[in-house]
Amino acid sequence: MAQEEVENGGAEKVAALKFTALKPQLMVEAPKAVDAVQFYKSAFGAFEVGRTVHPKRKAKQVLPHILSAQLELAGSTIIVSDIVENSAPMKTEGGGCVLCLETDDIEAVVAKAVSAGGVAKSEIAEDDGACYGGRVGKVKDPYGYVWLICWGFYITDTV
Amino acid sequence: MAQEEVENGGAEKVAALKFTALKPQLMVEAPKAVDAVQFYKSAFGAFEVGRTVHPKRKAKQVLPHILSAQLELAGSTIIVSDIVENSAPMKTEGGGCVLCLETDDIEAVVAKAVSAGGVAKSEIAEDDGACYGGRVGKVKDPYGYVWLICWGFYITDTV
Repeated sequence: MAQEEVENGGAEKVAALKFTALKPQLMVEAPKAVDAVQFYKSAFGAFEVGRTVHPKRKAKQVLPHILSAQLELAGSTIIVSDIVENSAPMKTEGGGCVLCLETDDIEAVVAKAVSAGGVAKSEIAEDDGACYGGRVGKVKDPYGYVWLICWGFYITDTV
Repeated sequence: MAQEEVENGGAEKVAALKFTALKPQLMVEAPKAVDAVQFYKSAFGAFEVGRTVHPKRKAKQVLPHILSAQLELAGSTIIVSDIVENSAPMKTEGGGCVLCLETDDIEAVVAKAVSAGGVAKSEIAEDDGACYGGRVGKVKDPYGYVWLICWGFYITDTV
């Protein structure tokens, strides 16, 4: 792994855009969002600050679909949503988003996530290939998302 | 859209896990991460705080692959990475992650993103189906990721 100095020339040219937050929204096959929310609570201790649901449900539905459940985790907010009809155009076609969760107790976090139903995808490793170096454990949750439980900073601070 | 009170019983039972950060990592088909980083700077004014690259490159590669470029955006950090050999197992199989970017000037942000190369996927709408209500514009970036440029809070605060 090598470090490089970075240039932010492009950013300087952008007129000042004001943002209040960036929140990853995890789309989950309906009606599993309710289970996914519980998993993130049980596995990572996420705290749910609010939930909106569809006002209507079909006859065979036991629970209404979740439009958005907002969870606080590691100082950030994630949104968990059931995929509904108008979600389809939002599906990502890219390489896929992974969630890096930084902690200095990787073993404990991986163990907790696995006990909650996640699947460890590799041994905890010290390698250059994940996140940005350091130590990392990989856990796939029951809803298809990969979490990198990681620690270690090898980024340049010369910007 | 309906709001529901939420329970955090599951979270209370989790032993206190300590996290320092949650960072979405956007995996990009190599070697396009360098372009993706520039897009996020040009479109959203993201600020790059550090970059690590592979120390080796194949003969035909003009630029080294990016292991991780860390970008500050809206008070959060995102990581942009080229997909390399050992990235493959990390690919998400779920419904896909969308990025909600909150701003009170949706029109300006969408226009800027489109001028930088993004594609607006719908008119700016006031609907219940995206994020958690309010107003929203959808932009797909050239790397397959969907950004919801959104504003409006309709979540319950009774937790």
